[in-house]
Amino acid sequence: MSLVRITQLAVSLDGYATGEGQSVDAPFGHAGGRLMEWMAATRLGAHVHGQPATAPFGVDDAMVHAGWDGSIGAEIMGRRKFTPQTGPWADDGWRGWWGEEPPFETPVFVMTHHPRPSIEMANGTSFHFVDGSPEEVLAMAREAAGGTDVRIGGGPTVVRQFLAAGLVDHAHLVIVPIILGRGVSLWEGLEGIEERYDMRSVVSPTTGVTHLTMQRRAG
Amino acid sequence: MSLVRITQLAVSLDGYATGEGQSVDAPFGHAGGRLMEWMAATRLGAHVHGQPATAPFGVDDAMVHAGWDGSIGAEIMGRRKFTPQTGPWADDGWRGWWGEEPPFETPVFVMTHHPRPSIEMANGTSFHFVDGSPEEVLAMAREAAGGTDVRIGGGPTVVRQFLAAGLVDHAHLVIVPIILGRGVSLWEGLEGIEERYDMRSVVSPTTGVTHLTMQRRAG
Repeated sequence: MSLVRITQLAVSLDGYATGEGQSVDAPFGHAGGRLMEWMAATRLGAHVHGQPATAPFGVDDAMVHAGWDGSIGAEIMGRRKFTPQTGPWADDGWRGWWGEEPPFETPVFVMTHHPRPSIEMANGTSFHFVDGSPEEVLAMAREAAGGTDVRIGGGPTVVRQFLAAGLVDHAHLVIVPIILGRGVSLWEGLEGIEERYDMRSVVSPTTGVTHLTMQRRAG
Repeated sequence: MSLVRITQLAVSLDGYATGEGQSVDAPFGHAGGRLMEWMAATRLGAHVHGQPATAPFGVDDAMVHAGWDGSIGAEIMGRRKFTPQTGPWADDGWRGWWGEEPPFETPVFVMTHHPRPSIEMANGTSFHFVDGSPEEVLAMAREAAGGTDVRIGGGPTVVRQFLAAGLVDHAHLVIVPIILGRGVSLWEGLEGIEERYDMRSVVSPTTGVTHLTMQRRAG
């Protein structure tokens, strides 16, 4: 069965999934790299940073791997995950934060009130700019995924929107023991959501973060 | 060495250590018993509720026990942990939430702008109502503790105040996987406090909560 999933979304102890003041130079705002430091210690993280994969394989790797093992066939993200710009699109050649080989390698649906032509990258990633409700965009992504899973990729505002609409089957969150103090809250408006999910945690002995999974309850 | 400690303070995933709307009937406000359900599953929790201690001894018990093993010689709490009333004291015979045998069995310093005579209970607990800065009240509690540890007992506003003032040596927090949505935040104003502490977590396989310890770094 095709699932709607959140994977490896890092959250601070005070519930922020990104900092304040996002810009081209600071995609996580004042949080900088702090929410993703644990990831740099994984084998995949080392690969992304062009370092040798010297870290031992552990729970961090396993949890990340589960989101990048080919089980995801389409991705949904908010416009602000694709670009820090707002309003009508500037003709500036921006093709996302990730260079010419974005890690997605699937169709990516970017939610925006300003539709524009799709962008095809060389490695199987394509960006489609769509205006619609979460349900409508999910229908497009499901069709593109062809029976595999759909990832709600972020940012936090979009993730929250899909959680609030009851559209998420499984979430993997990473509770990072830092206090950001300000930014975009993952949890705002989601009071009591634990009633609809089985919540399970495991601490990584390597990085000290807590991997929290939310599995939607049957019925 | 005498330490200043926070013990078994439960916090939701969105950072609230108590709910909204505290009253005589609802000491945790709309959170009800949800922040302390994990505790009911411990042997001490069973004892408090007059149940047989049938639960196996586990990490929850061990962590709770460390706060109730005689190592604490004095306690500091906010007035709102002692009573839901505010303003000048009413002559209504209120002696705290805990009946005639409060669990503290030490001097307890209740921070209030309305000093009043102390209350002595039969089991070694005494309540002293003091007006002063965190540093001043801590000095009184340290003297009463006579070389043993001082607990900052709550509520969250008082705990936050002592953390912000850099007065806390060790904290044991319990991250409960629920979203309260509103209440009193533990973390407000404490941005970046992790830089001064070693933060370590362990998940209880019995209750699913995460025990987070904060140990102040040397220097």
